Amino acid sequence: MTFEDRHIRLAHGNGGRYMRELIAQVFRAHLADPALDVTCDAAPIVIPDGTPFVTTDGFTVQPLEFPGGDIGSLAVNGTVNDLAVSGARPLYLTLSAIIEEGLEAALLERIAASIGKAAKIAGVRVVAGDTKVVPRGHGGGIYLTTTGIGIRPHGLDLGLDRVKAGDALLVSGPLGDHGTAVMLAREDFDLTGDVRSDCASVRPLTEALIDIPGARFMRDPTRGGLAAVTHELAQASGLDVRLDESRLPVRDAVRSVCEILGYDPYYLACEGRVVAVVSGEAAEAALAAWQALDDGRDAAIVGWLAPGGTRGGRVILATSAGGERSLEELEDDPLPRIC
Amino acid sequence: MTFEDRHIRLAHGNGGRYMRELIAQVFRAHLADPALDVTCDAAPIVIPDGTPFVTTDGFTVQPLEFPGGDIGSLAVNGTVNDLAVSGARPLYLTLSAIIEEGLEAALLERIAASIGKAAKIAGVRVVAGDTKVVPRGHGGGIYLTTTGIGIRPHGLDLGLDRVKAGDALLVSGPLGDHGTAVMLAREDFDLTGDVRSDCASVRPLTEALIDIPGARFMRDPTRGGLAAVTHELAQASGLDVRLDESRLPVRDAVRSVCEILGYDPYYLACEGRVVAVVSGEAAEAALAAWQALDDGRDAAIVGWLAPGGTRGGRVILATSAGGERSLEELEDDPLPRIC
Repeated sequence: MTFEDRHIRLAHGNGGRYMRELIAQVFRAHLADPALDVTCDAAPIVIPDGTPFVTTDGFTVQPLEFPGGDIGSLAVNGTVNDLAVSGARPLYLTLSAIIEEGLEAALLERIAASIGKAAKIAGVRVVAGDTKVVPRGHGGGIYLTTTGIGIRPHGLDLGLDRVKAGDALLVSGPLGDHGTAVMLAREDFDLTGDVRSDCASVRPLTEALIDIPGARFMRDPTRGGLAAVTHELAQASGLDVRLDESRLPVRDAVRSVCEILGYDPYYLACEGRVVAVVSGEAAEAALAAWQALDDGRDAAIVGWLAPGGTRGGRVILATSAGGERSLEELEDDPLPRIC
Repeated sequence: MTFEDRHIRLAHGNGGRYMRELIAQVFRAHLADPALDVTCDAAPIVIPDGTPFVTTDGFTVQPLEFPGGDIGSLAVNGTVNDLAVSGARPLYLTLSAIIEEGLEAALLERIAASIGKAAKIAGVRVVAGDTKVVPRGHGGGIYLTTTGIGIRPHGLDLGLDRVKAGDALLVSGPLGDHGTAVMLAREDFDLTGDVRSDCASVRPLTEALIDIPGARFMRDPTRGGLAAVTHELAQASGLDVRLDESRLPVRDAVRSVCEILGYDPYYLACEGRVVAVVSGEAAEAALAAWQALDDGRDAAIVGWLAPGGTRGGRVILATSAGGERSLEELEDDPLPRIC
């Protein structure tokens, strides 16, 4: 057994026997994939017909485990979802782990198991990996980077450039669950609550939407939340994004925590939701397609795109009180390390 | 200007305006690639005919800059080289940066410029990226993960399974330059020396070798150095790897530093060398092909593969003094964070 004292040592990252055993006992055991040949420098893959898409994401969430997920499931779903909202079917993942000396081996095993489980659910294969160990005090327990490769069917065209005035904006479920769950899991807030991260593969949601004629654009509202996605839309299109606050789904528990801590739920990250733009005519069909799914039960049409002013697109929230306010772009950091 | 006090802040990682500006001003500026669309979640790529290969590596070297390279060039060449030694032509890279709050913006810019330069030399395009900022005291200035996608020509067959008794072992140049240069760059050793990292793309070397009939296997001797590669060979094949110490190229300056610090240069990392196995008949042709290249001038045939004992393959060094010693597999950590 190489885990003396049940903790990771610097020698687990040095390219020798300890590292070989760590990879075999922890990563290969949980990611068991015939394509994950841990003795080769690069892995061959088969790319089916269509347009290949590639994406990468680093994950530094604290704490490493939280209600509804952990850094492992987050690292799989975060990258799977970036492919899915691009219209691509996720096929392959690579995994790089930067482990801090002293990490509990049992925690590492739970994270590896979570990676394996999330990959299986999302239908992706982990085909290459790398492990580094950094000295105590130079990391955050473990940081992960996943890179995903997927394939988009020929003829499918989604993107910021397709968005038009009159299009509808949909969200697939309640906003801010992930950000709130991670926040509550931090000891320094000394709050408890009944909120679980929404961390999940959004593939069922995106697959349902790409079959709808009139689908224009999808994005997962992670860092910066709905506010970041709508600002991207407004800036890229020059259109105003008009949101109806009364239609924005936010759980009561999330709203309460936000009120106590002074956060706005529209800036909080989701890790299993989709924001979509579809043509006005397609809005009801898209909503029905989502509401038929387990993960889309609380989907809603939350706004629309309107011609922008002379100074370009804005994001405007029609408040429940009957007024209007501008949803400003995020400047300072409301909630670090939620992904 | 978002770099107040010329240092990276947590807000540079939050998904809002600061992050968008950091990515535009630093990364996009230096990696200028039409395929690096910083507004999309996943990037489309074109994969030519052949077998696609994928590989990933994390980089945590300290110090971040050292004679002959920095973490940026290392992150590009490390991944490029993993593809190249697999016989694949490197095409695309993704880049994930985990930046520690307080990193000097000027240092980040030098690293980004170095990434751009190394990618250009190696002929790869950076098509996707991600940036996270972790709080001060939870990182190492910057950690990088690169993932590479390359294409191997149909019909080319290289691998540990192709190695046979009687095959020759070649190295493309002096061993241990990178490990020694990084070690000397550390203040804590208080040594100075005239050693530069060999950090470079090995593509010219691998391209020259795959045209030689009888090429069996290539590997870049990074973590664990020549010792790690030869142990992998011995374990996979059951053959003995017999090395002739008098033929192993090691610079005098590297040997001196190793003697002072008690290291063995055969365990030290290279980041621009190739270890190759070729059939006995092909050895001279392979050597000539390498010696014709700038980066292969000091290439040498350094050993051969012999039938292993009943307990499997060993790595045996015929010493310059006329004796024999076993080159043991690395167990404890001789030199952390050289990559």
